[in-house]
Amino acid sequence: MVDHVSSEPRTRSWWGWGWEDQALTDAECTALGGLVPGLPDTPLPVPRVTDLDLPAPRAAVPAALDAICDSSPEARAAHARGKAYRDVIRALHGDVGAAPDVVLRPRDEADVVAVLDWASDADVAVVPFGGGSSVVGGVECPAGSHAGVATLDLTALDRVLEIDRTSRAARIQAGVLGPALEDQLRPHDLTLRFFPQSFEFSSLGGWIATRAGGHYATLRTHIDDLVESVRMVTPIGVSESFRLPGSGAGPSPDRLVLGSEGTLGVVTEAWMRLQDRPRHRRSTTATFETAADAFAAVRSVAQSDLNPANCRLLDPAEAALSGAGPGDRFVLVLGFESAVLPVGDRFEMLVELVRDHGGTVAAPRVDGDGSGSERDAVADTWRSAFLRMPYRRDGMARMSALTETFETATTWDRIEELYEVVRHEVAAVIREVTGGDGLVTCRLTHVYPDGAAPYFTVIAAGRRGSELVMWDQVKAAVMDVLSRSRATVTHHHAVGRDHRPGYDRQRPEPFAVALRAAKAALDPAGVLNPGVLIDP
Amino acid sequence: MVDHVSSEPRTRSWWGWGWEDQALTDAECTALGGLVPGLPDTPLPVPRVTDLDLPAPRAAVPAALDAICDSSPEARAAHARGKAYRDVIRALHGDVGAAPDVVLRPRDEADVVAVLDWASDADVAVVPFGGGSSVVGGVECPAGSHAGVATLDLTALDRVLEIDRTSRAARIQAGVLGPALEDQLRPHDLTLRFFPQSFEFSSLGGWIATRAGGHYATLRTHIDDLVESVRMVTPIGVSESFRLPGSGAGPSPDRLVLGSEGTLGVVTEAWMRLQDRPRHRRSTTATFETAADAFAAVRSVAQSDLNPANCRLLDPAEAALSGAGPGDRFVLVLGFESAVLPVGDRFEMLVELVRDHGGTVAAPRVDGDGSGSERDAVADTWRSAFLRMPYRRDGMARMSALTETFETATTWDRIEELYEVVRHEVAAVIREVTGGDGLVTCRLTHVYPDGAAPYFTVIAAGRRGSELVMWDQVKAAVMDVLSRSRATVTHHHAVGRDHRPGYDRQRPEPFAVALRAAKAALDPAGVLNPGVLIDP
Repeated sequence: MVDHVSSEPRTRSWWGWGWEDQALTDAECTALGGLVPGLPDTPLPVPRVTDLDLPAPRAAVPAALDAICDSSPEARAAHARGKAYRDVIRALHGDVGAAPDVVLRPRDEADVVAVLDWASDADVAVVPFGGGSSVVGGVECPAGSHAGVATLDLTALDRVLEIDRTSRAARIQAGVLGPALEDQLRPHDLTLRFFPQSFEFSSLGGWIATRAGGHYATLRTHIDDLVESVRMVTPIGVSESFRLPGSGAGPSPDRLVLGSEGTLGVVTEAWMRLQDRPRHRRSTTATFETAADAFAAVRSVAQSDLNPANCRLLDPAEAALSGAGPGDRFVLVLGFESAVLPVGDRFEMLVELVRDHGGTVAAPRVDGDGSGSERDAVADTWRSAFLRMPYRRDGMARMSALTETFETATTWDRIEELYEVVRHEVAAVIREVTGGDGLVTCRLTHVYPDGAAPYFTVIAAGRRGSELVMWDQVKAAVMDVLSRSRATVTHHHAVGRDHRPGYDRQRPEPFAVALRAAKAALDPAGVLNPGVLIDP
Repeated sequence: MVDHVSSEPRTRSWWGWGWEDQALTDAECTALGGLVPGLPDTPLPVPRVTDLDLPAPRAAVPAALDAICDSSPEARAAHARGKAYRDVIRALHGDVGAAPDVVLRPRDEADVVAVLDWASDADVAVVPFGGGSSVVGGVECPAGSHAGVATLDLTALDRVLEIDRTSRAARIQAGVLGPALEDQLRPHDLTLRFFPQSFEFSSLGGWIATRAGGHYATLRTHIDDLVESVRMVTPIGVSESFRLPGSGAGPSPDRLVLGSEGTLGVVTEAWMRLQDRPRHRRSTTATFETAADAFAAVRSVAQSDLNPANCRLLDPAEAALSGAGPGDRFVLVLGFESAVLPVGDRFEMLVELVRDHGGTVAAPRVDGDGSGSERDAVADTWRSAFLRMPYRRDGMARMSALTETFETATTWDRIEELYEVVRHEVAAVIREVTGGDGLVTCRLTHVYPDGAAPYFTVIAAGRRGSELVMWDQVKAAVMDVLSRSRATVTHHHAVGRDHRPGYDRQRPEPFAVALRAAKAALDPAGVLNPGVLIDP
């Protein structure tokens, strides 16, 4: 995925996305800000931990946990929040809110058990933390509700423990980040093939806890589909399911863990379904002049049984924003991958299907590696832009722009209307809040036989110092239009604290009652990630 | 699927599988019994409802429910149990156990709500009942624990209410049985393509409640994958999820309903994902001389991305039993189906893959319909035998044979060992229990990249009057070997009451705690299907 060769250890940004050395320079921020009329001329300065006014740690950690305990300002600041726009803006203004009193870094599962035992007794809130890339307030520290807050940083649990080559599965510790996971699988010629945008900065346990969405545009879209069995420490004991390829024995225990967002327990290990590394690849792009044609073509692909690995539709504004198109038409990025079989025949069928629906298909580019795999230049451009997006968002945030994404899913009968209504209503609230026009772009990231997942990006001019209150109004309008449309409040970014208002309207009330009861039974002291998903 | 043209309404068997007129005659039973040494010479007589000694109904149904209430002996006998071997044997011996005091047939959801309100107040156990084809004691009446037992027969809720052609989905009432469902979808050129062996005698709500397994050997193997949204009446209110093609908003509410087996609520409707009717088909069979070759070939198919619709491996004894082979080799039934695209290319790749793994592939047979679809004679023979199997089982039961099936799933690294161990241990317990040899056959019904679902059939000589106690010993040994092997106690037949001992060892204890808490919250009076899945 993302390879980097470096002799020096790189430093993660405590306030923004990813690596410090990848952040935009002041000059780049200013140039970027110049594209949005109405922004200030200079960026907010990069915040420094030494300028923060962190309160003294409250929680007294028992001696037995001393070895895994870190109360340094650097650790507390870096674990205070995730990486949503709201988080970045607040950090830029010197506000890290209720930073954790302590960061605990378990070395093994016994440490996790010890932490939960202590926290339950001492009424200390525990916030499970993997890569810290939450964009929904999932790793934020709840203020005031408990005697203290401990963030449980699981990244030392970063090993592949066991590989079953026959079943193509591996037992993996939950704290491992994407690159380290793939590094350990590569010698076995295996891959999880799960590549969310956050790949470098998110963990297996985080993916499972948040039902993250990955690489596949079709079929196995979520981490849910790649989980064979999960091991989770709860305050009342350790839960471990059988390794099963499929089962019908009661409601799936794993499916209760998937999406529980650290409220029911701490995932420590999972058996994951792996793939052979792909050897056959083909990709191309197609363009469409109208939304109706573009959506119809994508739907026909989703309802064929071709199941391409990639099927990503960019609307004209999204294509322009990412350099994948001139901005006057829709761009569809298509790709096949297979480890076993040549994909040429299926690729040709796909191209024909797209042409039948009014698509203009680009000539595929042949790779220089002689493998016969073919790639497409537009797809490559889009991909590079895709990985830079969060850094550009931080640059825009430093210019006080309102700049964030949100994603959803709905059925095909409503998708075009949702696309129009969301753009219309978000544009309206932006005008109301900022007094000017903003940019609302959209892509479809995942497609299904019965619907698709639209992913929106918003960029508008904020007023310095009021960015948060302005964005919160936009976000409230977003959640409102999604619930009214009965579209999900999130397709793969999780609920966290930020999506609670939308989620509260979405989940069936009896399910909420059941989930609260399950939570109370598994976490009787109510210490696990309070404020996320449900209130006990 | 199964077409029948008849001017007269057919009668369902109250004591055995399916239609009365499809049951084996006395002579057929005798002939069949002659194949198993040690059985009696004559069949047990077909039991008559008039010979049953049913206790007087206990529950006093309120006047408001009079219109949907049936306390006739016929109704009570037909709803007393499911269709497991244990159920058939007991009925043959005149024992229908704790028959329901009353059968209630709701006409709409309001009736379901009224029944749950009354039952919760009056401490009457409610057993939701669709087609009544449970083979795991899922619709049996709990004896003694409540003031009465009402069976809720949902088959009057049998309509497709709404069709969304664009998203290929339909809103369907839960009581509809397979044939009536497909009859209503056919004019729209759509199908659910969900064809369990019980298709004629099982309902959509039953499939959802039990996580039934259907037509596909790969990919969307369970009903779980076809559910877009569920509506369920619980004693504390109605639960309805958004229609979503995919979501990451908290643990999936639908996945808690799926597999809940009537313990959390009564499913009344669901939006289901449909398919266009297949137009392109190819099928064939391959044979293998050794288990190692056969399993390796099936694994290679499951781990390719070809995903055939059918991939069913019969072991030599299973092939002989169903007339699909001479009994000296493994038989693999393979098939592709597609509504959209020709399947020839993928079919050829599949054949090549199977040949590479030592399979001898039969020449495909061309259908006479000129469509270019090709079918295989062995596959057709197997299919006919498959649909007759439950009737033959009843015939064997009348001869006092021990004759039942059980199914499981495990990962590929353990599958061959499981196949050998199960056959060995079940053969041993049969010798211990019956003093003679029995038949233990196996097929793989569903395959996954990381494992497969073996389905075993047992036939042995029982002693008249002791069949149940003998079978229960075999079944206990089965559950024991499956739990020791960490294979699931059921891949798609559900837990019910019969699989409880195995399930109790399988489900993680914290999950059981969570499920009990959810159950207590949704069904505070504890009236829903007591004894199934978990004890509150």
